[in-house]
Amino acid sequence: MTLVCPDRPGIVASISEGLLHLEANILENAQFSDLPTGMFCMRTRFESPIGDASEIAGALRARADALHANMAVRREDERCRALLMVSKYDHCLVDLLYRWHAGELPIDIPVVVSNHGDLEATVSSYGIGFEHLPAAAAAEDRVRKLVAAHDVELVVLARYMQIISDDLCRELAGRMINIHHSFLPSFKGAKPYHQAWERGVKVIGATAHYVTPELDEGPIIDQDVARVGHAHTPDQMVIIGRDLERVVLSRAVKAHSEGRVFLLGRRTVVFL
Amino acid sequence: MTLVCPDRPGIVASISEGLLHLEANILENAQFSDLPTGMFCMRTRFESPIGDASEIAGALRARADALHANMAVRREDERCRALLMVSKYDHCLVDLLYRWHAGELPIDIPVVVSNHGDLEATVSSYGIGFEHLPAAAAAEDRVRKLVAAHDVELVVLARYMQIISDDLCRELAGRMINIHHSFLPSFKGAKPYHQAWERGVKVIGATAHYVTPELDEGPIIDQDVARVGHAHTPDQMVIIGRDLERVVLSRAVKAHSEGRVFLLGRRTVVFL
Amino acid sequence: MTLVCPDRPGIVASISEGLLHLEANILENAQFSDLPTGMFCMRTRFESPIGDASEIAGALRARADALHANMAVRREDERCRALLMVSKYDHCLVDLLYRWHAGELPIDIPVVVSNHGDLEATVSSYGIGFEHLPAAAAAEDRVRKLVAAHDVELVVLARYMQIISDDLCRELAGRMINIHHSFLPSFKGAKPYHQAWERGVKVIGATAHYVTPELDEGPIIDQDVARVGHAHTPDQMVIIGRDLERVVLSRAVKAHSEGRVFLLGRRTVVFL
Amino acid sequence: MTLVCPDRPGIVASISEGLLHLEANILENAQFSDLPTGMFCMRTRFESPIGDASEIAGALRARADALHANMAVRREDERCRALLMVSKYDHCLVDLLYRWHAGELPIDIPVVVSNHGDLEATVSSYGIGFEHLPAAAAAEDRVRKLVAAHDVELVVLARYMQIISDDLCRELAGRMINIHHSFLPSFKGAKPYHQAWERGVKVIGATAHYVTPELDEGPIIDQDVARVGHAHTPDQMVIIGRDLERVVLSRAVKAHSEGRVFLLGRRTVVFL
Repeated sequence: MTLVCPDRPGIVASISEGLLHLEANILENAQFSDLPTGMFCMRTRFESPIGDASEIAGALRARADALHANMAVRREDERCRALLMVSKYDHCLVDLLYRWHAGELPIDIPVVVSNHGDLEATVSSYGIGFEHLPAAAAAEDRVRKLVAAHDVELVVLARYMQIISDDLCRELAGRMINIHHSFLPSFKGAKPYHQAWERGVKVIGATAHYVTPELDEGPIIDQDVARVGHAHTPDQMVIIGRDLERVVLSRAVKAHSEGRVFLLGRRTVVFL
Repeated sequence: MTLVCPDRPGIVASISEGLLHLEANILENAQFSDLPTGMFCMRTRFESPIGDASEIAGALRARADALHANMAVRREDERCRALLMVSKYDHCLVDLLYRWHAGELPIDIPVVVSNHGDLEATVSSYGIGFEHLPAAAAAEDRVRKLVAAHDVELVVLARYMQIISDDLCRELAGRMINIHHSFLPSFKGAKPYHQAWERGVKVIGATAHYVTPELDEGPIIDQDVARVGHAHTPDQMVIIGRDLERVVLSRAVKAHSEGRVFLLGRRTVVFL
Repeated sequence: MTLVCPDRPGIVASISEGLLHLEANILENAQFSDLPTGMFCMRTRFESPIGDASEIAGALRARADALHANMAVRREDERCRALLMVSKYDHCLVDLLYRWHAGELPIDIPVVVSNHGDLEATVSSYGIGFEHLPAAAAAEDRVRKLVAAHDVELVVLARYMQIISDDLCRELAGRMINIHHSFLPSFKGAKPYHQAWERGVKVIGATAHYVTPELDEGPIIDQDVARVGHAHTPDQMVIIGRDLERVVLSRAVKAHSEGRVFLLGRRTVVFL
Repeated sequence: MTLVCPDRPGIVASISEGLLHLEANILENAQFSDLPTGMFCMRTRFESPIGDASEIAGALRARADALHANMAVRREDERCRALLMVSKYDHCLVDLLYRWHAGELPIDIPVVVSNHGDLEATVSSYGIGFEHLPAAAAAEDRVRKLVAAHDVELVVLARYMQIISDDLCRELAGRMINIHHSFLPSFKGAKPYHQAWERGVKVIGATAHYVTPELDEGPIIDQDVARVGHAHTPDQMVIIGRDLERVVLSRAVKAHSEGRVFLLGRRTVVFL
């Protein structure tokens, strides 16, 4: 169960009483009161003899409504439907597919979309559909249809090198994750490793964030870094950066899929 | 409030209801169910119009007893009384004193004990008492008396290079923290950086742990590491290690003093 | 060019003079004097109008002999022939194959050997030969033959879960790399993540090392670590550890293949 | 010996031959060819029976001149004269003084300058002179005089919260190090931890750099980072950041004092 509501006394008491009535055994619980927004976030993993998520949600509904809460209940074996978008660089896509195949990521991947045809064989080898959509505008329309048709909950830009229109950004607000190959807010835009090299930084990074109409300005979900030195060329930074991008994007997709990420304005709460 | 009890349904519901009756506003909450021991740990920071900790504890007592819980309530401005023990190496001591002085550590330091006289001036410059106890056996008796006299809650071995007797280890079980200058369980005992150098490791570390009669085998509270290479001599590792030891011991003392550490057998639960 | 010899004055002067005669332009140079062994290690990347490695080696031979040096010259586009061995866990194998395919690793992979048949399709999809050798003793004989037939320079145990005989360890001394899924020397032997969990460590690791007859005691090439906490189960540590193992093994294979690793007794010199 | 010159074949051969004539035993050597600037940097630690640095420099002078090189020779026991500047935050100053006192930093500190009087006692307790210079313009004139009078080689801004005039920046180009409390180029200017919090980054950092007239744009010497999460307030980031600032500034001062840092335009070469 995930829940967001205005903070006030008694939230935990109310919800935990409700869970007790459901004979729930709490396995994991995290909560956070965000002072600037006054919002309270909560995520609880529990076991209950009632196996049906909607039945549980129904039993908790009155309590949630009294708290003016946005609440969701989900079975842990119900996986997040994620559409992946990619261009030519395959390292993030391959990593997501590998982890999905290895059971590390609780997602289903109905289809992969690309503005290039290069990765069709890679995707097909996993038994996943691939759509080659070379024209940006038409691609967005098709993505909208695929999202609707497959009940897609999350769109992952796994090094998709096209600007997303403002409209689609807004339609998928909080549901579209991008990996940017720099330690944001440093080095927005194109060729961030070359920018990093020119600035002479000693640490490079990668950032997974929700996509917003403002390029590379979306709320950050996860970041990681690696040390570099004067001897690293931009090309070597690109190779080091691939490992960062892979790991950071996969962690962000995993956290989102497990309901661990809450979006509060420009910031995220991530229960790790 | 901190609480440990056998895990069962309804703990959070009961406690949060109790807190609601106290008009408590929860600021921070963490909980964990440890499967191997079957124990449940909980730590809650809250504000309440009732300012007195014992009054709050009294109001929650019946609930805690029903849960067979070990519960404690403490005002956040009540500081942990910590006795520091040190030999000649001063880096951990200086760091603890600096952070204490800067207000980073919620501790009071009634006295510092050493088997050497070297650091008396350093300690005195902070207005803290210093006792030079050169003989190990007599030192332990004196430490017992100081612990009783100053109501000491925590003993910190800040590079105290004497073996603590089994008896004192047991008397202060869960209340005595040591910093070991290796990444335990590697390199127990003397000269760990030299051991690390001989083994040719590429990463060195430091470990803060509760002291038990088994040398360097106590439950680990925190650890950290740094990369090294073939060009680092043991002496250079010692210098790099100082920074690790400082930071790891200070973090462990802070976590313990804030009630964030729970001891479950050989393992700790640390709510960061 | 790589060179190891007893340390003495004039080594760099002699070699750099020799390179000057070859009109070599030095691109990268690293050297190290190891005090305990009294050995000097040097690695130089250079361009020369003489394109033939054996001709260059011949021109430098007299200088090397005068230094009692073990010297090797290799063209950068001559790749290291590496035989991979694997059991059922595929994460290290898949990572090595991916990086090989992406051009990150300067190796050729003539064949992959496994005591299980599970990964044949994965290997074959890269156009690489696969041999299923279920019986340990026979496998070693076959490996010897493959090493000879393919002029194999490096054997990589990419989570190969069989003990290697002392004889083969000695035959391939300094040419066989294993990945151990712990931060050695902690947690040698089986199930290191479970050992780590039981000991309650706050940091886990992985170690790439040359294989010697003493299990998990070989000279360390690279290590890396990740923070864990009380909430991580052994199974979750296994997943986190996979990422460490992948990266550490790939880095070690890369460093070895590029001639950056020198073996001095139980320790390595690694020019990064 | 440190040396910078336009790259060309034969530099190492010439210098190492010169060192051989001086019967020098090379202890450590590092070199780097910077492609964009075409410059070659070299640093060599050696022992020689000739103990006098100017005599050694004299013997190498002709070779250096032939290479159009900027060369310096320095005895290892000759310490770098460093003037420290500080405002009210004392963590970096205290750390530098502690490491200086512990023998970790090869510097002499003739005087500490501050625009506040608060830290006079701290500085004096180490037997170091302290000058309180509240007025910014007059302070710079006095700093110029102190630099001249004490033959100061390095000025360290250890959280000195005053803008340095363009003139002084230019006069001390490559000789004045500042610590900025963010992971540059992110969060230039004031209150970087608050900026970081507002942007919702998951990693914060600190940067040591040479001071140039462009605020927080100078060449970076070292950086380091720490993970943060949604639960960290700006004030908690400040505390975490202190540890980063301390370590990064001390490392940068140490590297500069040991002649390990070469300034090439906007970038630095740092031989670690």
